[in-house]
Amino acid sequence: MTMYHDLNTPERILLGPGPSMVEPRVLRAMAHPLLGHLDPMFIGLMKEVQELLRYVFQTNNELTLPISGTGSASMEATVVNLIESGDEILIGVNGYFGERLCDMASRYGGIVNRLEKPWGEVITPEEVEKALQKRPAKIVAVVHAETSTGALTPLEDMGRVVHKHGALLLVDCVTSLGGVPVKIDEWDVDIAYSATQKCLSCPPGLGPLTVGERAREVIRKRKSKVPNWYLDLTMIEHYWGDERTYHHTAPITMNFALREALRIVQEEGLEKRFARHRENSQMLWQGLEDLGLKCVVPKEHRLPSLTTVAVPEGVDETAIRKSLLTEYNIEIAGGLGAFKGKVWRIGLMGYSSRKENILLFLSAMEKLLKQAGQSP
Amino acid sequence: MTMYHDLNTPERILLGPGPSMVEPRVLRAMAHPLLGHLDPMFIGLMKEVQELLRYVFQTNNELTLPISGTGSASMEATVVNLIESGDEILIGVNGYFGERLCDMASRYGGIVNRLEKPWGEVITPEEVEKALQKRPAKIVAVVHAETSTGALTPLEDMGRVVHKHGALLLVDCVTSLGGVPVKIDEWDVDIAYSATQKCLSCPPGLGPLTVGERAREVIRKRKSKVPNWYLDLTMIEHYWGDERTYHHTAPITMNFALREALRIVQEEGLEKRFARHRENSQMLWQGLEDLGLKCVVPKEHRLPSLTTVAVPEGVDETAIRKSLLTEYNIEIAGGLGAFKGKVWRIGLMGYSSRKENILLFLSAMEKLLKQAGQSP
Repeated sequence: MTMYHDLNTPERILLGPGPSMVEPRVLRAMAHPLLGHLDPMFIGLMKEVQELLRYVFQTNNELTLPISGTGSASMEATVVNLIESGDEILIGVNGYFGERLCDMASRYGGIVNRLEKPWGEVITPEEVEKALQKRPAKIVAVVHAETSTGALTPLEDMGRVVHKHGALLLVDCVTSLGGVPVKIDEWDVDIAYSATQKCLSCPPGLGPLTVGERAREVIRKRKSKVPNWYLDLTMIEHYWGDERTYHHTAPITMNFALREALRIVQEEGLEKRFARHRENSQMLWQGLEDLGLKCVVPKEHRLPSLTTVAVPEGVDETAIRKSLLTEYNIEIAGGLGAFKGKVWRIGLMGYSSRKENILLFLSAMEKLLKQAGQSP
Repeated sequence: MTMYHDLNTPERILLGPGPSMVEPRVLRAMAHPLLGHLDPMFIGLMKEVQELLRYVFQTNNELTLPISGTGSASMEATVVNLIESGDEILIGVNGYFGERLCDMASRYGGIVNRLEKPWGEVITPEEVEKALQKRPAKIVAVVHAETSTGALTPLEDMGRVVHKHGALLLVDCVTSLGGVPVKIDEWDVDIAYSATQKCLSCPPGLGPLTVGERAREVIRKRKSKVPNWYLDLTMIEHYWGDERTYHHTAPITMNFALREALRIVQEEGLEKRFARHRENSQMLWQGLEDLGLKCVVPKEHRLPSLTTVAVPEGVDETAIRKSLLTEYNIEIAGGLGAFKGKVWRIGLMGYSSRKENILLFLSAMEKLLKQAGQSP
């Protein structure tokens, strides 16, 4: 019989597209003894998680909670609850996660209209308006912060345009929530989802989600049952609500972790947290430029929490990443899809966004690029 | 702004239908710093989780892995991957979770044939055969250990009968895996799912699953795409397989926990673990009898990991549970569905199944029943 050694994970410096590093306080929260999921103490804790999620989403939406799966599950929850077979959905596709939304929507019988932009660019309200004029839709979905490209799509004017055409606005906030402003109420976003392992610096395993009144009304008026049991928001809502109707068993320890991670966000304060992410990203961008490296996304749309850098001609993309990991315990990522082999992705999210990490990473990169025959 | 206090959970003695208590070693494993989900070290750890899951499922099935959601998600994964619209499925309904299988199957267009038995009874191979003779099915689904009733359906002869009629055998092992024998290969089960928070004594958040060759072939030959992105086993398989194709981000910390929980199962050894569950349940049953309480399920089908006890006439079911929790930190559960208000459910699962817990629980019950005017 194989014997398995004690778990002994190194202290990785996680500067990829997520997971980010987890604050020691959050790690310790997970070592707490379990409560039953119907224990009054756990019910109190669930309410706190909801309140704290409303704070980071900047919303008063009652239906705000973490889906009991990763960010992909909360993404699917938004799609499957809103779409009924034959519904038109306009999806902004400017990266990998827009593609994924198209796949999900079509699995549920949605008729997908793709608003395509080159990877690294953003979707504008004008383009959305034009597309809706040509072909109306029930839902418009955009990715706020594309984790595959590092582009931040401005949303200030998106809700107005979408609602003018009678559609609902669905937003992916996976890599923005907790790192850059996400103003669900002010921007009039109808439904949005995120993940815990990005700018919230909690381990992966829960998918924060918020649903506004307009979207709830659409869900209430569905003609067909939601074709997905685990992600049926009507049942999940009654589990998280005062009725506490049994649905599934919430991942208790993960909720301990999320509560602690959100408490840390609240203690720092959103504005200070956004400023930290902004300032640190500027330090990174300056450093990359000094090394002669080029960021893919123009500065005005560049995401503070995730930066894509072009791999210089003649440099072995994977070899550099491997050396960073094995020699310096630093993780960054390569590109996905259209960007595969062409870019590195460097995340500065939540607890990972610290000056010491940036300085170390830049020094390591300088060394490795020199060894690869590239000097600034 | 509301300030939230430090997490400070009491040491609950969890004797309900799950979650069970978590071993201190598992709690400590969750406090380890995170690895990236594509880190070679995490990939090695995933392989170990798969090997250890094969050990507890007693199977050589290559496709054995934890779904990144709770047990309900792994339940849905089995249903949605096997069923295509219009497929016939025979479901043994002798409790709450058989009902849930019916709901899930019908959401995916399955034509459900219910094999109903009163709550607390079991489904026999003879009954399954009779039902299949009347009306063939593509899939037969049974709940091995019904968490709502505490009945254990014998499976030794089920696979033979089901396969004779050309169907696939789908089994719910949520409350059996790690507590009573689950012999996937010997019993010729085609697909089975479980949860982590029962007899494996790991927090909830992952859903172990195993798929045999016959079921994989059915999945490969589907005419339609799986109408569920998050639970599409073909994609999940390539994420867990050597290709490591990105699908979602696995709940990393939860996998640390599951690995440690499974390592503890392996160290104890399955046979010794089953014997411990059996012996401790006998101590509980004897003690309940001495208190004048009646177990609902006849001894020959009674589940060691979960016991349902009839609430005596005139006793306030919820008041007793409340006193157990607030005065003695002991959690047990009430009944679900048909058993609501009529039974208590007492779990002795994994790390919760210890003599000191049973003795304490019985003493507390004796005290509380006396106070309620019931004396043995």
